[in-house]
Amino acid sequence: MNAVDSPYKPLDVDTLPARLVEIEEVTSRLGQDTSNWKVREVGDGNLNLVFIVESPKSSIIVKQALPYVRLVGDSWPLPLKRAFFEYHALTRQAERDPGSVPEIYFFDETQALIVMEFLSPHVILRHSLMQGVRHGGLAKVLGNFCARTLFRGSDLSMDTTKRKEDVALFVDNAALCDITENLVFSDPYFDAEMNRHTTPQLDDIVAELRADIDLKVEAQHMKSAFCTNAETMLHGDLHAGSVMVHGDETKIIDPEFVTYGPMGFDIGMLIANFLMAYYAQAGHEASPGERDDYREWILSVVDETWTTFSTEFSRLWREERTGILYQKTLYEDQGHEVAAEQALGHRLNAIWQDTLGFAGVEMHRRILGLAHNIEFESIENEDLRSQCERPSLKLGRQLVVNRSRMPNMAMVLDLAREFEGKKHA
Amino acid sequence: MNAVDSPYKPLDVDTLPARLVEIEEVTSRLGQDTSNWKVREVGDGNLNLVFIVESPKSSIIVKQALPYVRLVGDSWPLPLKRAFFEYHALTRQAERDPGSVPEIYFFDETQALIVMEFLSPHVILRHSLMQGVRHGGLAKVLGNFCARTLFRGSDLSMDTTKRKEDVALFVDNAALCDITENLVFSDPYFDAEMNRHTTPQLDDIVAELRADIDLKVEAQHMKSAFCTNAETMLHGDLHAGSVMVHGDETKIIDPEFVTYGPMGFDIGMLIANFLMAYYAQAGHEASPGERDDYREWILSVVDETWTTFSTEFSRLWREERTGILYQKTLYEDQGHEVAAEQALGHRLNAIWQDTLGFAGVEMHRRILGLAHNIEFESIENEDLRSQCERPSLKLGRQLVVNRSRMPNMAMVLDLAREFEGKKHA
Repeated sequence: MNAVDSPYKPLDVDTLPARLVEIEEVTSRLGQDTSNWKVREVGDGNLNLVFIVESPKSSIIVKQALPYVRLVGDSWPLPLKRAFFEYHALTRQAERDPGSVPEIYFFDETQALIVMEFLSPHVILRHSLMQGVRHGGLAKVLGNFCARTLFRGSDLSMDTTKRKEDVALFVDNAALCDITENLVFSDPYFDAEMNRHTTPQLDDIVAELRADIDLKVEAQHMKSAFCTNAETMLHGDLHAGSVMVHGDETKIIDPEFVTYGPMGFDIGMLIANFLMAYYAQAGHEASPGERDDYREWILSVVDETWTTFSTEFSRLWREERTGILYQKTLYEDQGHEVAAEQALGHRLNAIWQDTLGFAGVEMHRRILGLAHNIEFESIENEDLRSQCERPSLKLGRQLVVNRSRMPNMAMVLDLAREFEGKKHA
Repeated sequence: MNAVDSPYKPLDVDTLPARLVEIEEVTSRLGQDTSNWKVREVGDGNLNLVFIVESPKSSIIVKQALPYVRLVGDSWPLPLKRAFFEYHALTRQAERDPGSVPEIYFFDETQALIVMEFLSPHVILRHSLMQGVRHGGLAKVLGNFCARTLFRGSDLSMDTTKRKEDVALFVDNAALCDITENLVFSDPYFDAEMNRHTTPQLDDIVAELRADIDLKVEAQHMKSAFCTNAETMLHGDLHAGSVMVHGDETKIIDPEFVTYGPMGFDIGMLIANFLMAYYAQAGHEASPGERDDYREWILSVVDETWTTFSTEFSRLWREERTGILYQKTLYEDQGHEVAAEQALGHRLNAIWQDTLGFAGVEMHRRILGLAHNIEFESIENEDLRSQCERPSLKLGRQLVVNRSRMPNMAMVLDLAREFEGKKHA
């Protein structure tokens, strides 16, 4: 597994073929003749190098970590070990929800390099959301992915010794957690150095949010849950940029922010990104209202993602609850099926409240913090952009502060429509 | 640090002097002449060998782990590494609350052996509680110990990278956690093999509790919090057998069950053990009512322990909140002192509810599970013993199921008196 030259050296389009041609897992797919390999660097994320390598025979993706944050530069160092964590997350996700993530062909820890399946002609979900493109089955894949990876990575299912070994393994991904801890949960709520927002259009509401005591307290409660509540292995960065789509096919990528954390984090981030895409439509439609049907489709994806999640989570609870929590020995084996169902309801309710809280925080940080969403950022008219961002900030605040008093998704979606000035369902 | 012969070999009173005389940290205290050493094995706990070694010059405690559970025998193997965890817990507790734990003189990981300060003429707190002996300052030491170790071992105070390293270090103490997970949270609530209770006197209430769906669901919620909510470094076994007292001096010992977990666990277990001692008085007083004043003293210790904890926790929150949660940058530095106070209130409320839940579970497992309390067990008349245990079971149920609706300690203590048939305060 260590055919690539040590020590670590970042690849480029020129050096890549000579270094990958020694790897059997690569040449068995692309062939030995590097003269007909076509190499492109396509990384549009914030952190890594990503290459597509194509030969007449096949194609692969090569992802290599850089020792710093690509978005910021080498002034912000970041451990290469994140490739190790991504690799271990991908293999676990593939086991827990087969077919949901790209196939891994090769991993080199020293080179912080993962060779994997090239998903083609898939595109990043964000682009479809900006273009008004629908994808069948999207919510089903996402909801099932969350239910299966979150359930099967927890003490509800895993052997607890293995679960604890994984906690110890992934807790070392502290540098990437640190990014989430600061950039998601803290920086947006005060005038931190790396923040930016659409100014001066949003200055009033930004000032209002940063003076909002209830919001600032609840956002830190969410941070506390993220930092300490090691319920399960999270994807850790499950936004619309970590989802690839083509027609009715959906794949989940980029779990390098993997960490043990609370179940609601992944689902909350996912839902937040759909809600932001909903508010971004005004910046992408040809005329006001043209995308109204598409707006409703986005909300239907939010609704169906949660429904799919809770349905699949409930199925797993009933059929695969083999861990140390809420054991069948205590419940079903004693004739107390009702205890198992009651506990399931409580757990889903707790995940629901966490989901809303994390969703709200994510909606804030993408408008107030360092890393913004292209759905908003690509709206060049800043007045128009701020009109899209404003309702997102408002809904985010409601979700964070009132998360324990939101009865169901219908209520959340009606609130989303209300802030957008659209009719209730 | 490895002067004792490898490989691991359990000591006995005969082999101990020859093996310890090579350790400078021992001979500097006891001298070199082993012929005047007096060695006694005094382990009355469930797990380990404990020796007192006295010479004319001084005295020490030698604690050595056995590769199995002493209470059960070698049919139940248990890793020697627990001595390693105990050592690391003791050094951290000594830093976080100086003077609260015995001084460590020497640690040998291979021999699973800790040499430490002999607390003399201290006795285990349980014995004082059976004899009706009061100790001044007890609640102060215990409340401060909880506040300081729990606060200073958490993301409220620690550098988060160090906190995560400690999570990874202690998560390997899985075998001892497994004992807690099963014996405390699950076995008591069904007819598990190792359980025992005062029978037939308690058969009716035991059947009732094991058919109580609400209780069985809430007890598993407490287990889930224990397993996943890695807030801080817990003592992990903070009952009245882990507290040594002499006059007004109190020391805390035996943290081998150390684990990262929820703050309420230690305080809850502590309070539960006082409440059980309260109910055990009828089995130890010379005539009914003779110990009524002492009963009230025990309840005052419970009250003062919680008050001391919350007062000291609040002081630390205001003065030492240097971690990544609820940062001053976000609150005080923005002129939002009220946010800091509001968040503190929420955290204390969450700890309070956890405390009651864990206390209730502890009160059950000591009467229904494998490991019982000597305060009850030493009552030979089984009718009388069961009369002490019954109100404890009832109060435990109330604490577990209604923990989110108990306004304050006064209410809890009145409930304790109610089940004992005593007048409210």
